[in-house]
Amino acid sequence: MSGKRRVTIALIAEQAGVSVPTVSKVVNGRPEVAPETRRRVERLLHEHGYRRRTGHGDGPVGLVDLVFAEIESPWAIEIIRGVETAAREAEAGVVVSVLHTHSGPGRDWLDRIAARRTDGVVLVASKLTRRQHGQLVARSIPFVIVDPEGEPAPEVSSVGATNWHGGLAATRHLLELGHHRIGMIGGPPEMLCSRARIDGYRAALETAGVPVDPSYIRYGDFLVDSGHRQGAALLELADRPTAIFAGSDMQAFGVLEAARRAGLRVPEDLSIVGFDDLPLARSAWPPLTTVRQPLEEMAALATRMILDISRGDASEPRRVELATELRVRDSTAAPRPR
Amino acid sequence: MSGKRRVTIALIAEQAGVSVPTVSKVVNGRPEVAPETRRRVERLLHEHGYRRRTGHGDGPVGLVDLVFAEIESPWAIEIIRGVETAAREAEAGVVVSVLHTHSGPGRDWLDRIAARRTDGVVLVASKLTRRQHGQLVARSIPFVIVDPEGEPAPEVSSVGATNWHGGLAATRHLLELGHHRIGMIGGPPEMLCSRARIDGYRAALETAGVPVDPSYIRYGDFLVDSGHRQGAALLELADRPTAIFAGSDMQAFGVLEAARRAGLRVPEDLSIVGFDDLPLARSAWPPLTTVRQPLEEMAALATRMILDISRGDASEPRRVELATELRVRDSTAAPRPR
Repeated sequence: MSGKRRVTIALIAEQAGVSVPTVSKVVNGRPEVAPETRRRVERLLHEHGYRRRTGHGDGPVGLVDLVFAEIESPWAIEIIRGVETAAREAEAGVVVSVLHTHSGPGRDWLDRIAARRTDGVVLVASKLTRRQHGQLVARSIPFVIVDPEGEPAPEVSSVGATNWHGGLAATRHLLELGHHRIGMIGGPPEMLCSRARIDGYRAALETAGVPVDPSYIRYGDFLVDSGHRQGAALLELADRPTAIFAGSDMQAFGVLEAARRAGLRVPEDLSIVGFDDLPLARSAWPPLTTVRQPLEEMAALATRMILDISRGDASEPRRVELATELRVRDSTAAPRPR
Repeated sequence: MSGKRRVTIALIAEQAGVSVPTVSKVVNGRPEVAPETRRRVERLLHEHGYRRRTGHGDGPVGLVDLVFAEIESPWAIEIIRGVETAAREAEAGVVVSVLHTHSGPGRDWLDRIAARRTDGVVLVASKLTRRQHGQLVARSIPFVIVDPEGEPAPEVSSVGATNWHGGLAATRHLLELGHHRIGMIGGPPEMLCSRARIDGYRAALETAGVPVDPSYIRYGDFLVDSGHRQGAALLELADRPTAIFAGSDMQAFGVLEAARRAGLRVPEDLSIVGFDDLPLARSAWPPLTTVRQPLEEMAALATRMILDISRGDASEPRRVELATELRVRDSTAAPRPR
């Protein structure tokens, strides 16, 4: 976008057949514009790649918006810590919002942050429709997606982790211990990170010549309760798995609970691998074998990208994936001979 | 403070022997003032109870600052959720900062938020020296303390929980099950909420005629590792306790780990009670008996108090304690006969 020539509000006003103050109101997220006019202006702003001067003067305002779809898991603490650290280094404050929906930010919220003149938005695990994307661009609000829920458009910057490699490493570890009946609990099927983990699991099984049994793959929401529910369902199968790759640490805690209720010992009767490596994974009992994703670093990087964009230092959109790493602890062991 | 007559910047400037713009710079957190002048002006602002008009116009700006000393435990999620919900209802954003110290906000941070013109500050578990208090008042920044670390000054509004009653209820529950050797792990000794919980523990023992054994009382930092360390120390005592009131849920998870490492079953060999009732308490194994404190409601109430103050609707400082409540689950049982 930065390569384009500067587009003025006057040009947009002329093409939209409205006054300059009307375009200005749309850009600044003010409410007093008829919906149809607003849509027309937004479309033109988006088409022309209009970029508002940020801040009250020229440089950054000193506020970064951090937006969660939901804030349920201790996972969010790691993200907040990363964003807060990077923002503080740049003397910026962090505004935290929770959308309470995975369908992305609504227009009210967008108008509010445009009026407040944020330096940019770090969107966490949110889907962004083409229309929402256009609304952000129309308001000249830079944004970076952490752990994108769907495949972001090519012009969108994002920071994720190597989920596929993580799924592969977790499953290979279980295969190397001698497991063949390995269950998998993913997150919501529409979430990209979850699909990548499942694909890594499949790839490990297939390269090891172990057939993928669809009844061994289940889906949760990454939280404890769904780990418990889906774990219990896997353990009720006639030919129950001897190991479960739980897709997230919180789901691993749920599987741990399901195993205990079923009278199974971990790792003697059931091996469990998590994903995330939250601080709690280390202090769980048994300490959890898991795939570490560097959540704090991911969040800090996304924040630095936003601050670069708001200072005009960033050129091209960036897609970054930070490395995941297997952490072997005590929740995995060789299966018992039958 | 609201009963006092309006104090102008001109009056302060006259008394301090400086210009009006200099006082204005101090009030707005601008850096270009000599330290000694700044101190003199701050003292006068504080003495006169000066109140800046908030916001860019008259009403609230739409930003509330939420300030943590540290952000380590899932405990913080509950607080953020409460503040975010109450702020969203008032169409305000929440700026989250972490001080990384328990000694309260420094001048840099205060200047930054004064320059940004926040509607007010929710300070979590932070100590506030008389001087920091004066600096907030001098900048006309309203603030409310959640879970105050020390005893706040009488003019400071705060929201806590009935920690003493919680400590009493937890210990009574253990006494009623038949325990007499009951260990206690507090938080940092200087934290008021921790002292109140320990006093409740003492009161329960004393009213039951059970002598308080000082070697049974230990101190941690409310996180998992210190629960593990202090729990292990209690279990190594010659006459080890049959029950431990762990002071926080995170410390209870640590005690759980210490018990397992010592080969003790919970609750058969050792009963454990937490404090907080985090969502994880329910999904722990065994599900944790704990004292619920309504963290989300406490945070929401503090936020509404701040918004009331910034709208000029609040009159007197308020000190509120919300009720705690014992939640009996599976980590407590009668002691085994010896």
